[in-house]
Amino acid sequence: MKELIEKYKEYRKKIKAYGYAFGLIGWDSSTVAPVNCFKYRGEQIGVLAEEYLKIEKSREYKKIVNTLYKNRDKLNKELCKEITDVHKSLTKIDKVPTKEMVEYSILTNNAMAAWEKAKNESNYEIFRPYLEKIIEFKKKYVKYCETKTLKGYDVLLDEYEEGMTQKEYDEFFNLLKKDLVPFVKKIAKTKLEYNRSFLKKRFETEKQKKFMLYLQKVMCYDTDSGYMAESEHPFTNAFGICDVRITTHYYEDNVSSSIFSVIHELGHAKYMQDVDKKFEGTFMDDGASMAMHESQSRFFENIVGRSKPFWDKHFKELKKEYKDELDGITVNDFVKHINEVELSYIRTEADELTYPLHIMLRYDIEKMIFEGKVTAKDLPKVWNEIFYEYFGLKVKNDKEGILQDMHWSDGSFGYFPTYALGSAYGAQFLHAMRKDLDFDKACKEDTVQSILNWLKDKIHKYGGSKYPKEIIKKATGQDFNAKYYVEYLIDKYSKLYGVK
Amino acid sequence: MKELIEKYKEYRKKIKAYGYAFGLIGWDSSTVAPVNCFKYRGEQIGVLAEEYLKIEKSREYKKIVNTLYKNRDKLNKELCKEITDVHKSLTKIDKVPTKEMVEYSILTNNAMAAWEKAKNESNYEIFRPYLEKIIEFKKKYVKYCETKTLKGYDVLLDEYEEGMTQKEYDEFFNLLKKDLVPFVKKIAKTKLEYNRSFLKKRFETEKQKKFMLYLQKVMCYDTDSGYMAESEHPFTNAFGICDVRITTHYYEDNVSSSIFSVIHELGHAKYMQDVDKKFEGTFMDDGASMAMHESQSRFFENIVGRSKPFWDKHFKELKKEYKDELDGITVNDFVKHINEVELSYIRTEADELTYPLHIMLRYDIEKMIFEGKVTAKDLPKVWNEIFYEYFGLKVKNDKEGILQDMHWSDGSFGYFPTYALGSAYGAQFLHAMRKDLDFDKACKEDTVQSILNWLKDKIHKYGGSKYPKEIIKKATGQDFNAKYYVEYLIDKYSKLYGVK
Repeated sequence: MKELIEKYKEYRKKIKAYGYAFGLIGWDSSTVAPVNCFKYRGEQIGVLAEEYLKIEKSREYKKIVNTLYKNRDKLNKELCKEITDVHKSLTKIDKVPTKEMVEYSILTNNAMAAWEKAKNESNYEIFRPYLEKIIEFKKKYVKYCETKTLKGYDVLLDEYEEGMTQKEYDEFFNLLKKDLVPFVKKIAKTKLEYNRSFLKKRFETEKQKKFMLYLQKVMCYDTDSGYMAESEHPFTNAFGICDVRITTHYYEDNVSSSIFSVIHELGHAKYMQDVDKKFEGTFMDDGASMAMHESQSRFFENIVGRSKPFWDKHFKELKKEYKDELDGITVNDFVKHINEVELSYIRTEADELTYPLHIMLRYDIEKMIFEGKVTAKDLPKVWNEIFYEYFGLKVKNDKEGILQDMHWSDGSFGYFPTYALGSAYGAQFLHAMRKDLDFDKACKEDTVQSILNWLKDKIHKYGGSKYPKEIIKKATGQDFNAKYYVEYLIDKYSKLYGVK
Repeated sequence: MKELIEKYKEYRKKIKAYGYAFGLIGWDSSTVAPVNCFKYRGEQIGVLAEEYLKIEKSREYKKIVNTLYKNRDKLNKELCKEITDVHKSLTKIDKVPTKEMVEYSILTNNAMAAWEKAKNESNYEIFRPYLEKIIEFKKKYVKYCETKTLKGYDVLLDEYEEGMTQKEYDEFFNLLKKDLVPFVKKIAKTKLEYNRSFLKKRFETEKQKKFMLYLQKVMCYDTDSGYMAESEHPFTNAFGICDVRITTHYYEDNVSSSIFSVIHELGHAKYMQDVDKKFEGTFMDDGASMAMHESQSRFFENIVGRSKPFWDKHFKELKKEYKDELDGITVNDFVKHINEVELSYIRTEADELTYPLHIMLRYDIEKMIFEGKVTAKDLPKVWNEIFYEYFGLKVKNDKEGILQDMHWSDGSFGYFPTYALGSAYGAQFLHAMRKDLDFDKACKEDTVQSILNWLKDKIHKYGGSKYPKEIIKKATGQDFNAKYYVEYLIDKYSKLYGVK
């Protein structure tokens, strides 16, 4: 056994090292790489990927993992979880014919370009033939990967959030439909009164950058183990626990955009910086799941970052940078602005309250696809109908409707639901945290360290060594329960809007 | 043969791909990587390097290269040069016992740290034991690598500039000693009169950055195939012909520092951007040699960038950024400032005229080391004596003397001479260029495109496919001749200083 574990670690070391190189090349691609580099870069990545796959797909590695998996009861708990995860993904790779996977990766590569074109021209028909083929492959893929317990769409849901199935998501979204949809409609009818004059001002980028450095300190970001760059779309990228980077994008006509994108990404980043150092170099060095990650970024962004107590403390610092632009604006004005609810078309621009409705829509559609109730041809019609049901708005064009998100162009079916689930996890964590500490007071401190201590102890430090369900149970004393999310939203927005 | 060449190209593709990853990781390390990343990063690089060496040191690769080398007369000229180069370096690797090489790389790694400490504390004795061992190894290394034609120090000189030996460098430096040293002493006694008031001003970084964007256009830098970042020490880094990056460092109390470091690095960068695209993916995709590279960067920096005609055109743009700081300063003031000669201690801060004296000193010492005329123990004394001879200044401490450069701590003996040689190549190119175009007029144009066209056609486009000596002969119609360098310097500085 000992020897086998050593051999496994040798393979893991290699796989991690290639991953490190790919990760860093990817970071460079999304931040500073010049446009003309990509053809040559693609060739270099291709060569390295071939070398990498020789290792990951080697018979010896597979044999080692299989043997360890069979004897997993003899491993310590953490290695047992890791081997179980690796075994699961290797088994899956084996089930799908390599030839079909290669064809599919070419297909998604082309589909991405077609989607971009279609979106730019707001013409779904350009994208449709690609999406048809992607759906066709994904259905075949699901068939290949089905197990005794996982069938149909569940196969995909499980890939993004292990242990979550259609049954559980249905319960979750049904609760939202019942309680949240009518509430959102009521709120959306109410107008929030505040001084909006600053929304027309220009917020100089250099000053935004200075404020972000301040925010980094407030959110306890360890810049000796991180770095912040600019990119088209904000993201977080980790190269081990010791190097967790984030990006943002500055808009001079919208000062809150970069503020909340930075706080959001710092939520991801702190999760990774706080993982126990003993997981460095293992596959457990990242978060427990997609939704668990999203729970941390949204906890930072919405629950802490959009709270009144937080800005009671920090708004004066923002005003220091923008004396003229924020002249006469109160904390209340600002807090109302950053929490204003609007029924709108674009998911990525949605507020905290309407956001889960955008996800519900996508979940409904994905379910219908894998239940065979809808084909690619019907999708815009179906999208627009459900959108009207939830938002009461007519979709004006494909660009602001079915074509707005990239996810389906690379076949990421099953991904969207984790976004809403993450917010719900966050609300349940808040409920539990309030029992241990004075949350509002903690938001008002110089830094969010007290909040982070709780998150680190209950969630972050475990990295990927526990399943999401285990973490939730241990952190909150209960299984996942979506009611905390609905309660949190209704409580917050009833108060803000003075609506019962 | 055809099959063998294909096999060689397969190996080359892999070696290049790993090199690409290492290069990009290195770029990241020198620009944005956070301090805490390096331990983990080192481990990842170690794993990848092992994978890489398996390929480069494989028997099959060696066999392929050897066979191709034996049949090199059947290859096209470019591939013949490439195979000859590769064969030369593989043969060398074989001559030195791997164990000794590994020990040596550990030694230089530790020596680097010791040198830093020694320099900070200005105490040579901290560094001496390491340098002793490095010299000891390098002498053994030279023995291992000696050939019929290359003996002693020549082995090392040839590594940095193929075809240049002690005999040729002696001729070169003797000419400098004879003609330049007395001239420099004469100039240094003369005071340059100009308005120095701007030297005490503060030049805001943001404005410097704006001016650098202007300079990039003037120097015809293709930013679609490049990127400029900041780093402690400026450098150029290429990832193929399509991605050539530079860095700079801004000092608010010294506006010319970043201007000339950027122009210098752009000289390197344009060389690489102008290499014929057919060399992409080969080992010929960089410059012909160290000195040839340095000839291009110094041509840009000193011959073009510090010329009066260049600033006749562009000084007004700099004044636009710094209206107050440069108020009342004329082009003549500025041109005098950027060409002012000063006998000083630090090589990297030296002006164009005294720079080669710093190199001569190092060349003299390296020669003595490999002739066994001096040991590590005596070096500070020898340094200070020769320094006094050339500069007429007494060295105050080791930090500003023997410890100032990093090069010897990683055993780069033979490297320094290429710096001076590059300047001399540049002057010979200028002499030839003046026959084909009106150089002063070309410096005054919106961009330096006319000058670049000449350089591209005579030098850049060949990349590494020709030997430096071939390029010089073809570009200038003559073998290398140092007299052009001496003439250029004496002519320029006599006029500037009004000294005969």
